[in-house]
Amino acid sequence: MSAYGLHRVVDPVGVLPQQADRLNADPVPGHDEVIVDVERLNLDAASFRQLREQHGSGEAVRAAVLAIVERRGKMHNPVTGSGGMLLGTVREAGPDSPLGLKPGDRIATLVSLTLTPLRITDSLADWDGTSEQVPCKGTAVLFGRSIAAVLPDDLPDHLALSVLDVCGAPALTDRVVRRDRASSVLVIGGGGKSGSLSLAAARRAGAERLIALVPTQKEAEALERTDLADEVVIADARDPVAVSEVVNRQVDVTIVCVDVPGCEHGAVLATKDGGTIVFFSMATSFSAAALGAEGLAADVEMIIGNGYVPGHAEFALDLIRAEPGVRELFEARERQTSAL
Amino acid sequence: MSAYGLHRVVDPVGVLPQQADRLNADPVPGHDEVIVDVERLNLDAASFRQLREQHGSGEAVRAAVLAIVERRGKMHNPVTGSGGMLLGTVREAGPDSPLGLKPGDRIATLVSLTLTPLRITDSLADWDGTSEQVPCKGTAVLFGRSIAAVLPDDLPDHLALSVLDVCGAPALTDRVVRRDRASSVLVIGGGGKSGSLSLAAARRAGAERLIALVPTQKEAEALERTDLADEVVIADARDPVAVSEVVNRQVDVTIVCVDVPGCEHGAVLATKDGGTIVFFSMATSFSAAALGAEGLAADVEMIIGNGYVPGHAEFALDLIRAEPGVRELFEARERQTSAL
Repeated sequence: MSAYGLHRVVDPVGVLPQQADRLNADPVPGHDEVIVDVERLNLDAASFRQLREQHGSGEAVRAAVLAIVERRGKMHNPVTGSGGMLLGTVREAGPDSPLGLKPGDRIATLVSLTLTPLRITDSLADWDGTSEQVPCKGTAVLFGRSIAAVLPDDLPDHLALSVLDVCGAPALTDRVVRRDRASSVLVIGGGGKSGSLSLAAARRAGAERLIALVPTQKEAEALERTDLADEVVIADARDPVAVSEVVNRQVDVTIVCVDVPGCEHGAVLATKDGGTIVFFSMATSFSAAALGAEGLAADVEMIIGNGYVPGHAEFALDLIRAEPGVRELFEARERQTSAL
Repeated sequence: MSAYGLHRVVDPVGVLPQQADRLNADPVPGHDEVIVDVERLNLDAASFRQLREQHGSGEAVRAAVLAIVERRGKMHNPVTGSGGMLLGTVREAGPDSPLGLKPGDRIATLVSLTLTPLRITDSLADWDGTSEQVPCKGTAVLFGRSIAAVLPDDLPDHLALSVLDVCGAPALTDRVVRRDRASSVLVIGGGGKSGSLSLAAARRAGAERLIALVPTQKEAEALERTDLADEVVIADARDPVAVSEVVNRQVDVTIVCVDVPGCEHGAVLATKDGGTIVFFSMATSFSAAALGAEGLAADVEMIIGNGYVPGHAEFALDLIRAEPGVRELFEARERQTSAL
């Protein structure tokens, strides 16, 4: 079981690293481990929002992140249960590591920070606490079954990291749209990172009617300037009646990419009997989805968006290279975040 | 939208009945509605357990159920978010009801009590508050898109109700095992109601290696007296390492039927890459499943168990008629409950 990092669990002993309260983040590699010199953390959006809401000022958010990592040996937000990912350079690889990484490789981890042993050594001195992307000095540990992508030379780091953070979504969208031979696809939250990548993936997978649902006129306009969707509609994703009305004809596949609670029923109402819904939002409620579909007598398959699909990193990086619309939305989003 | 019962929502207006705080349970049918004279409620297991834990005595549990229904116009446990189902006789059907029911039909509702307008008129005088099955006089409302099954003549009511309560599980198990052409199937919680039906369904769908995981020696012995599983193993489903060890060789399909939190990672570890997990437990955590699979680099499809699959009621009733092992487990369970 060492491939899963069980030996790194301090408390309670015998659970997997993600379930653990505390991990041992000692930067000495086991025989199948890799030690990474961390450069940057990318906090999960739901986690960062919660920290900002709870702590307010950037300074207080920074202190909260340091306290979590100090206590837990990982950046695992105890309220949201979510983490994020990191970027760094391989320092040392154990002799039996199966990841194929060598010292000096610049990588991004594609497993969650909720299970990655992490030590911060610079007190996050270069971060002002107001953005999800956190400059950071420290070390992290990868296990035998971890996943890491070597960073591409042809894309800026911040962009690659931003893409890799959500790369499970387009890969699973591709798989589901092809499997179902879906002709109509709705992406709820189509203007966001995972949403725009999912739109591009659905188009490539052969979908003919692509609908993006967004919350505001401004997001709609940004999306309309790209060719990613055939229809852009505006509604509150938490209002099932409104979603159902703007989507009008039910679709074969619905992809849920908005990180707010309460989007389950709108997705169900928008999807045909026999169709499929993929939930990528960490704010999804299992029971609301299960009982909602039953209560609406909807014969839909509902999939929990798994962040891991083989080849997902390459697939997402390829989309951002090939689809100017996706890149444009990502870059606009970054300009906006840094302007906040 | 009246087929979904929007006109019955009192507060907040404009949401679907399941999301509503309060429904109008007035027993006068709209044009596509059906009014039912209620005989019995079957509370969701998680809801009943929570009520018992919070309120203790049977008398206090009864008062709590009455208070919920009085305030909300539905039996929607505000803590667990779950409901249950009911049994009764059709009193009146509106002229445009598509359900095909007529006055005098004895039925069970297959949509959750969390969205069914309900009025109790006997103060639950015949219930002592110590069992999930609640004798009850009152009225309920079915919408155009509700689902109800006419009760069979050849099975006792309590048994039919108990089967119909979980009939989505075997139907979806059947569909997934056939779709994946799965040869090995693990049912976590194989000794329970949905678990034993799912084992029988998986066998019929062609699975060759059927493993049931149960928590105790006693449950294992009860299951071993039937032919439902090829292997019965004992482990705490919340302990992924233990689950992984007793299952030994990973399976094609895992069905999760235990109503306790924390079973997601064990299910992931027990399932092959390329395999499928169906979560029927309302205690499933969306984020634990999503992040767990990602963190374990597991390429598994994870499905949210939808309680509605067309034909699910007939399918489950047929299983209990044809499979003596399933019926035996159901009846033993009922004897146990009434003995408490």
